[in-house]
Amino acid sequence: MTSLNIQIVLDKSDRVGPGKIRLLELIAEKGSISEAARAMQMSYRRAWLLIDSINTMYGEPVINTRIGGYGRGGATLTDFGQSVIDDYRRFESECADLLASRHPLLAANGHRQKKS
Amino acid sequence: MTSLNIQIVLDKSDRVGPGKIRLLELIAEKGSISEAARAMQMSYRRAWLLIDSINTMYGEPVINTRIGGYGRGGATLTDFGQSVIDDYRRFESECADLLASRHPLLAANGHRQKKS
Repeated sequence: MTSLNIQIVLDKSDRVGPGKIRLLELIAEKGSISEAARAMQMSYRRAWLLIDSINTMYGEPVINTRIGGYGRGGATLTDFGQSVIDDYRRFESECADLLASRHPLLAANGHRQKKS
Repeated sequence: MTSLNIQIVLDKSDRVGPGKIRLLELIAEKGSISEAARAMQMSYRRAWLLIDSINTMYGEPVINTRIGGYGRGGATLTDFGQSVIDDYRRFESECADLLASRHPLLAANGHRQKKS
């Protein structure tokens, strides 16, 4: 099944794509940065840096933490953080619809005889 | 300026994105795999493997070579190869239009106060 991997490049070093979005979704689900990091097999530090980069990129925080700072005490998404996820998933699905409906050649429908 | 980096994932290992598309464009422009590879600072072997992966993925060749096989004798795109490029660039531009018109939050218009 054809899928997309879309990275939004705001600037050379400011990018948001499937990895950061998945991390935010896992934080929402687990209520914890360290548990989300573990689920993605990354260090707490790396998860923290990714979140910090999204905050800086959009100039608005995507998560709330319970005990001052980005502690291990628990984390929830801000409304803005939830909007970033929702909007990204909607955008991804709209692009997938475009690909399927208008670009069958690119989506390889009708090709890949050897594999189908 | 916000841009997109879109990878079409046909299968776990079958992907086409900006790198392979740029390589095909350079082959069309320079008429040579080795010159296209040099322009992208990759080895001839790596360029050859990337092209071969596109051929296999779509089950149809994207380039013609002059002297039997993928020699260094010169290469041009097949009509199919040109369609892959054109279609990818059209799709990319349609997705960029969608992002700008329907997802300003994601495109960070109005955010990034510190940087704009």
